[in-house]
Amino acid sequence: MRITILGTSSATPTFKRALSATLVEREGESFLFDCGEGTQYQLMRAGARRGRLGTILVTHLHGDHYYGLPGLLSSLGLNQREQALQVIGPAGIGRFVDFIQNFPRRFSLPFELTCRELPTGFEGVVLETDELRIVSAPLDHRLPTQGYRLEEKPRPGSFDAARADELGIPFGPERGRLIRGETITLADGRVIEPADLVGPPRPGRSFAYCTDTRLCLGAKRLAQDVDLLLHEATYGEEFWQLAEERRHSTIRQAAVLARAAGARTFVATHFSTRYDREKIKELEDEARAVLPDAILATDLMTIEI
Amino acid sequence: MRITILGTSSATPTFKRALSATLVEREGESFLFDCGEGTQYQLMRAGARRGRLGTILVTHLHGDHYYGLPGLLSSLGLNQREQALQVIGPAGIGRFVDFIQNFPRRFSLPFELTCRELPTGFEGVVLETDELRIVSAPLDHRLPTQGYRLEEKPRPGSFDAARADELGIPFGPERGRLIRGETITLADGRVIEPADLVGPPRPGRSFAYCTDTRLCLGAKRLAQDVDLLLHEATYGEEFWQLAEERRHSTIRQAAVLARAAGARTFVATHFSTRYDREKIKELEDEARAVLPDAILATDLMTIEI
Repeated sequence: MRITILGTSSATPTFKRALSATLVEREGESFLFDCGEGTQYQLMRAGARRGRLGTILVTHLHGDHYYGLPGLLSSLGLNQREQALQVIGPAGIGRFVDFIQNFPRRFSLPFELTCRELPTGFEGVVLETDELRIVSAPLDHRLPTQGYRLEEKPRPGSFDAARADELGIPFGPERGRLIRGETITLADGRVIEPADLVGPPRPGRSFAYCTDTRLCLGAKRLAQDVDLLLHEATYGEEFWQLAEERRHSTIRQAAVLARAAGARTFVATHFSTRYDREKIKELEDEARAVLPDAILATDLMTIEI
Repeated sequence: MRITILGTSSATPTFKRALSATLVEREGESFLFDCGEGTQYQLMRAGARRGRLGTILVTHLHGDHYYGLPGLLSSLGLNQREQALQVIGPAGIGRFVDFIQNFPRRFSLPFELTCRELPTGFEGVVLETDELRIVSAPLDHRLPTQGYRLEEKPRPGSFDAARADELGIPFGPERGRLIRGETITLADGRVIEPADLVGPPRPGRSFAYCTDTRLCLGAKRLAQDVDLLLHEATYGEEFWQLAEERRHSTIRQAAVLARAAGARTFVATHFSTRYDREKIKELEDEARAVLPDAILATDLMTIEI
């Protein structure tokens, strides 16, 4: 699973930081979390295969998180995309997409576009396939905001091919059945249990996306034991009151949450534009005082989990 | 007068070309023509003083020409701008700005924002100050489209200071009155006519912005004897039929129009994404076969007139 952080600035862009958007790619499909203005440019710079994008998840309706949607949808249409696309977000996202598609007059996209609006305070599964699910939980910001967690379902345990050779199990469907957890009977009458050859199921990988929010339990639940937590950290501790007022997090708060939730990797993003190349080091110090391995996101940073 | 071309791609951006937007700066004020997605990023890269921006003129309501408006307006608001801002464009632009300002709920900008919608087919003055006027004329595209021409009013003729010294005209208001065209009487009774010291009024500088359009008379009127014509040139001649169908221009057509209108400088822009770094040379050749001084715009190109 590859996570590419496309934009890391809060509210307005800077020379080095575009607005919020993060791409998650796995096994030939990809998911976009937020879509600030400029996302279609950043997807290009990241070398992303846009054709694989099937789902866009928007956290909340502040412009820096979704003003890139009209341009991206329009470009996907112009590029003759055919695969269906789903947009998931808080109440209102459907009305926005609908307005754009009908202004100034209806333009038809060559692909099916559906919107799913999450009721305010929604907590639960928003997407489920054979291989993964995405759950959402409410965050605590100035207007209804949803965080998301993408988690793969447990993958089959590893198959001990050397042992299978020793036991003389033929190549072919028998091995597949063992991997799927079935007991098999060989031609010579021997019964082979999957536990003889297949290790315990391996946990799926997981990613949590929590922005914008002040410290809240919804974010903590999404971040619980996650492989990678991307959490907003708009301010340093000196602005904790401003963070509280505007319902943002300080980087220390975000790091404390990541530690409390047992997130394996913590990446901070969504920095106030006051943090230029020099000042950002203060944030780094504050995060690392809590979590020595804390990472501060930069645009187009890619992390594999 | 300084013209900075912020984006030169048609429909979708490329690695090297952002979407349509052009900034005109003169005497402490500036004007933005079109505002495709990413314009606020490009203004930053161009080092533009956004506080000076007083008027945004939109040609038509295809997304690549105005999807940058929500983000730019929002950022101007967040930066505590106080100066009024006017948006001028075809019918519908007001409804778009109104929707954005009220979605998902009303957000108030710290500056006065007004929209002026031009009726379809409008031809005439859209803005006039002591120093300049902007006129608009209809272009010929798939939906109502307006071209624009910014022209300074004639400036006072040059003042012959050496001759004034010879004649013993004191420094101070007498010289100002001569420059403004008044006859003065000196203390010694001599009568001085302005024509003795002030040359003929100098013509103002002018800039025409014509995109998207197929070859049309509205564009020709806007381009008449202009100092700089920025005209779309989406395709090369091999795609003249496609240009006709989609109501775009080939670069040869645009150059022919520039020559016929007597434009002093012709700059082509709004290139189809098929013209990469290599292919664009074909367009250059086609333009220069008509006008040897034709210029093909690149992003962030600046031209002083």
